[in-house]
Amino acid sequence: MAKRIEFYDTTLRDGTQAEYFTLSVEDKLRVAQKLDELGIDYIEGGWPGSNPKDARFFKEVRDLNFKHAKLAAFGSTHHPRKNPEDDPNLQALIEARTPVITIFGKSWDIHVKEALKTTLERNLEIIEASVAYLKPHCEKLFYDAEHFFDGFKADKDYACETLKRAQAAGADVLVLCDTNGGTLPHEIVEIIKEVKKRLGKGVSLGIHAHNDSECAVANSLMAVLEGVIQVQGTINGFGERCGNANLCSLIPNLVLKMGYEAQSKNYLHRLTEVSRYVCEVANIPHPSYLPYVGHSAFAHKGGVHVSAVMRHPRTYEHIEPELVGNVRRILVSDLSGRSNILYKAKEFGIRLEPDDPMLANIVAEVKKLESEGYQFEAAEASLELLMYRLIGEPKQYFELLGYRVLDMKSTEDGLPLVEATVMIRVPPGVGVIEHTAASGNGPVNALDNAIRKAIGRFYPQLKEMALADYKVRVLPGKPGTAAKVRVLIFSRDNHEVWGTVGVSHDVIEASCRALVDSINYKLFKDRHKNKEG
Amino acid sequence: MAKRIEFYDTTLRDGTQAEYFTLSVEDKLRVAQKLDELGIDYIEGGWPGSNPKDARFFKEVRDLNFKHAKLAAFGSTHHPRKNPEDDPNLQALIEARTPVITIFGKSWDIHVKEALKTTLERNLEIIEASVAYLKPHCEKLFYDAEHFFDGFKADKDYACETLKRAQAAGADVLVLCDTNGGTLPHEIVEIIKEVKKRLGKGVSLGIHAHNDSECAVANSLMAVLEGVIQVQGTINGFGERCGNANLCSLIPNLVLKMGYEAQSKNYLHRLTEVSRYVCEVANIPHPSYLPYVGHSAFAHKGGVHVSAVMRHPRTYEHIEPELVGNVRRILVSDLSGRSNILYKAKEFGIRLEPDDPMLANIVAEVKKLESEGYQFEAAEASLELLMYRLIGEPKQYFELLGYRVLDMKSTEDGLPLVEATVMIRVPPGVGVIEHTAASGNGPVNALDNAIRKAIGRFYPQLKEMALADYKVRVLPGKPGTAAKVRVLIFSRDNHEVWGTVGVSHDVIEASCRALVDSINYKLFKDRHKNKEG
Repeated sequence: MAKRIEFYDTTLRDGTQAEYFTLSVEDKLRVAQKLDELGIDYIEGGWPGSNPKDARFFKEVRDLNFKHAKLAAFGSTHHPRKNPEDDPNLQALIEARTPVITIFGKSWDIHVKEALKTTLERNLEIIEASVAYLKPHCEKLFYDAEHFFDGFKADKDYACETLKRAQAAGADVLVLCDTNGGTLPHEIVEIIKEVKKRLGKGVSLGIHAHNDSECAVANSLMAVLEGVIQVQGTINGFGERCGNANLCSLIPNLVLKMGYEAQSKNYLHRLTEVSRYVCEVANIPHPSYLPYVGHSAFAHKGGVHVSAVMRHPRTYEHIEPELVGNVRRILVSDLSGRSNILYKAKEFGIRLEPDDPMLANIVAEVKKLESEGYQFEAAEASLELLMYRLIGEPKQYFELLGYRVLDMKSTEDGLPLVEATVMIRVPPGVGVIEHTAASGNGPVNALDNAIRKAIGRFYPQLKEMALADYKVRVLPGKPGTAAKVRVLIFSRDNHEVWGTVGVSHDVIEASCRALVDSINYKLFKDRHKNKEG
Repeated sequence: MAKRIEFYDTTLRDGTQAEYFTLSVEDKLRVAQKLDELGIDYIEGGWPGSNPKDARFFKEVRDLNFKHAKLAAFGSTHHPRKNPEDDPNLQALIEARTPVITIFGKSWDIHVKEALKTTLERNLEIIEASVAYLKPHCEKLFYDAEHFFDGFKADKDYACETLKRAQAAGADVLVLCDTNGGTLPHEIVEIIKEVKKRLGKGVSLGIHAHNDSECAVANSLMAVLEGVIQVQGTINGFGERCGNANLCSLIPNLVLKMGYEAQSKNYLHRLTEVSRYVCEVANIPHPSYLPYVGHSAFAHKGGVHVSAVMRHPRTYEHIEPELVGNVRRILVSDLSGRSNILYKAKEFGIRLEPDDPMLANIVAEVKKLESEGYQFEAAEASLELLMYRLIGEPKQYFELLGYRVLDMKSTEDGLPLVEATVMIRVPPGVGVIEHTAASGNGPVNALDNAIRKAIGRFYPQLKEMALADYKVRVLPGKPGTAAKVRVLIFSRDNHEVWGTVGVSHDVIEASCRALVDSINYKLFKDRHKNKEG
């Protein structure tokens, strides 16, 4: 029988305890659907007893039909000075009406005394009573042994007794949680071996690791090798402090490399998309260095081996990026040289031979702009426009002769008045001069509105285009507001998202440059490219 | 004899192959000094044969006197079609005149044939010849066995033979490199056990892991348990693709938890500072979730256990944050409640009792502002000013009656003209009205200049204050340039850095709010606080 693993996602509960990471109820519903599409086995939706947002989630989620995942509600063992029947936490779990209930209990003697403020024996009772009480109300009952590894190190008999009580009361899986994240891989192995000895080889164990020692993924893998059948984690490893075990690393490690069967196996190609989706919904930049799913995960820099990668990718990549929905990238940077520019030209469909005299010019110009603060790694549309300009084929669909932005605010509570005036000639050099003004919510919005107003009648397709993200970074050099700023704009239409960049001391001028590039790129690709969404 | 480990830092070489991570020669010199202050054993300064920047580094570094670290120069084995004496790479290594030389050679048969384009036997020869040639020119010669684990899996005899040749020629340490980052911890253990069997127990081994499977730190720890004596990594794990093994996790794991002796042991309290310094120099935001050194690493969220943490920190933290130069933080967020606000008030020195009727108001106002896009986690100065305002003690040292910003550009190549006009009353309500204008490099700089011009004669200490960083983030909600933006400003004077925030549809208005807060905070703390740098 093939070894099988089940993945339990707690992005919506433990994940939301991460700093900077918050999800509304609507966000959680959307993310839950994505997790289902990834084939996740269990989705922990929240802690219904802890706040009204979570309780509302469990109501509204009943309108969704999961194809693969089972929903879990999370909560605590009952209050030591109550009975299960009177405990509002347990009642909230039952009212959530989920197929799975997960409750956590104390495993560490000092927590029982100091945090729960009760006796060691009473804690064992409430674990047993809570599990027994909830079991008839769900298909599966998982027991999370909180702070298990620290508890085991403090008193192994007591920690194992808490597990035995949960097991005796009917818990389907006993999940060992490294709540403080301080346990190291070799300790995980020793402790799980001991737990299996004491609880019997047939015991069903799970692992819930935290990343405070940067070993959460490894700890989970080592636990699986010791026979653990359920792995808990979050998308992108979001979670309290340094995060939870990262499912986006765990699933490919276990399924692609260690040969485990899992429900997610057939949906692994969606991994990168789900990873990016969660960041987008939470409005957090997608961390570029993330293993498997990061923008940099298969990005090759350094002219030396780029040519080798292009010939034999398998010798420089541990897996094929497509298996997890990611792509190989060759970076243009100041460590790069002709190889990288040639690769980019090919990608853009620009014919550039290795012996072309223009090649040296292009490389030199890219390096010069980079030293001024331009960064093309995220702004490939600007790079493509630049390359066309340097080979003598600029894509300039309008000529911005000048602009003026006025931003005024006259009282504490009044709205600012923002007006942009532009003078544009279409087409460049010979056409009509459009001179118009527009207002906006802010200077960049006003400029965007004014430009569209001026050229919209020539280029109606601009209506399909919207600004997706806008980033400003102060560049090193002169300190403070006298420094240069780099503006990165991501634009989207119905088919794709593209990035453009502008650099200046003046954030409006930098934004204007990135804006002009973004519009020119849209008009260029509509004429020449055929990218279906 | 106590077990001892040596740390080898390759931030300046392998680290700089990370996307978005570039260091100038001056940057590298500064970082090298910081690494020395951390007690790092070896600092790999670069690859002198690969580019002029690195060669220049090795010249200029001779002016520095390292107290603890030994400098290493990195390079490749000699070209198969040359001799050691004619090989420019090896010559460059000798000219670097470093106490340590590290060379890398091919361990994987397919790389020998496809990348090096030579025979398996010739590869063994060049390894042996390169090591033997360089050994007399340095105190220590380290041999990096590139792609070792993949090479071992393909042909264990050949991979081990490459090591034997380096060992025979006099290499002091044989460093096993997981160059593709695809090896998992249990495989590391099996392979190193086998290598020790074949090369003899006395062999000195090192480990150089990459993070493509999110196991670089764990792989290094497991390697040390198998007897490896040198661990290679980078600060914050910067490196190609998903990065190198993170020294900021490795050093505390090995020294604080696993009891290894190391030169860094006495300087561990500098870890967070060095970690932040490297990000600052590279102009990359310091990743908040980094274990040990991240801003979130000891940040507690979630009202439930915050009270427990405040009473017994050791039960919720795997180490004391001060050991690595970090601090515990209690977060204000929408999961928080009264506990967190009380904690913050105490931190700010504001007297607020748990039964104070103002407490509910403050909590409600913070939550309302957060739902509008304000984020106080990075802008504690704004939070402090807000709390004073809500308890009836606003700190408002000037009244901004109105502003007007004009930003004009009239030709492609002309500089933009930026002018800000402000009307300010000092002190608020009763004082003189200052009405003045200033220009600037951009709208925010012009506003800053105008405000300072207006109130500078009342508050000369503003000269000490400068803007350190400026971040703009588009908030979810309305798409594109009609969305709200959140501006975060970090300001500094001779003593500290503080963060303030402003939210608006208009980036100038948002910047203005953050600017006004930053100036009020400076004036407030000068009057009331005594913070020595």
